[in-house]
Amino acid sequence: MIVILRLGHRLKRDERLSTHVGLASRALGADKIIYTGDKDDKLLESINDVSQRFGGSFKATYESGWKKIMNDYKKKKYCIVHLTMYGMPLKNKISKIKKSKKVLVIVGSEKVPGEVYHLSDYNISVTNQPHSEVAALSIFLKELSGKKEKKFPKARLRIIPQEKGKKVVEKGRK
Amino acid sequence: MIVILRLGHRLKRDERLSTHVGLASRALGADKIIYTGDKDDKLLESINDVSQRFGGSFKATYESGWKKIMNDYKKKKYCIVHLTMYGMPLKNKISKIKKSKKVLVIVGSEKVPGEVYHLSDYNISVTNQPHSEVAALSIFLKELSGKKEKKFPKARLRIIPQEKGKKVVEKGRK
Repeated sequence: MIVILRLGHRLKRDERLSTHVGLASRALGADKIIYTGDKDDKLLESINDVSQRFGGSFKATYESGWKKIMNDYKKKKYCIVHLTMYGMPLKNKISKIKKSKKVLVIVGSEKVPGEVYHLSDYNISVTNQPHSEVAALSIFLKELSGKKEKKFPKARLRIIPQEKGKKVVEKGRK
Repeated sequence: MIVILRLGHRLKRDERLSTHVGLASRALGADKIIYTGDKDDKLLESINDVSQRFGGSFKATYESGWKKIMNDYKKKKYCIVHLTMYGMPLKNKISKIKKSKKVLVIVGSEKVPGEVYHLSDYNISVTNQPHSEVAALSIFLKELSGKKEKKFPKARLRIIPQEKGKKVVEKGRK
């Protein structure tokens, strides 16, 4: 079970990046994303709509307080991993993290409260360079799932890989 | 030599995503990014500013026509890889692509002209699910560079990995 916690979503400013965080989470093996910050129904809808069309059971939800979420997942024995450029290199810690069957992955937006660093089991960097939470999360999820690729059952739309061009297959709706 | 071509940047709408594309490119081993679409000096400045502060020789530039760029790089014997959810799975092609010392990686924004698919040597998908060009590019660059991590010489700011909290070291300016 892999749950993503996206901190401090802001209407307008973060809409597209938060969408990318959600869709990348789904595509790369997470089971759920929780957004905190501004409530944004359109954001949740757009991600849940992709799940409906492209299959699988990924869900996007909103909750208000990040600290309560962290504490709840701690009680549920999740390994809590905060992705930050200031953290320890992924390669040094990934084998330890992989031992957990349940992982909560935290990605911030602009400013992350200091407490997040302390409540997390691991603060992990994907390079110690400034870049992108979408990039860090994607590489982290890829390393976490290894060669195992997520399946997306009950898809209405499926993409058939092509050397050139596009091929999408649509199942007849019931 | 790894060059990124970001197609069709749009002012306002793409500003943050295009910044993430640029910074992730730099952090994950590319040498240069070329933006097409709307000219956006602030975007270029913000990325080149990160290079100045955090070291290395990564450059962000703007050029107007994507087709000319593709043809120029083709003449320079670059292997041209277009990242798209419609393409062939990365894992099937990465060993072939790795044989090239020079790679041009293309990432689109909203709509990618059909010709891009045909002019590219490879159309590559990082999952056949809708997600994020930042995610796809990051995972592609990570696979391309393998365990080799990019060095960033002459950095003014360096981040020292920490288990908890932040540590940034600043070199005295000359």
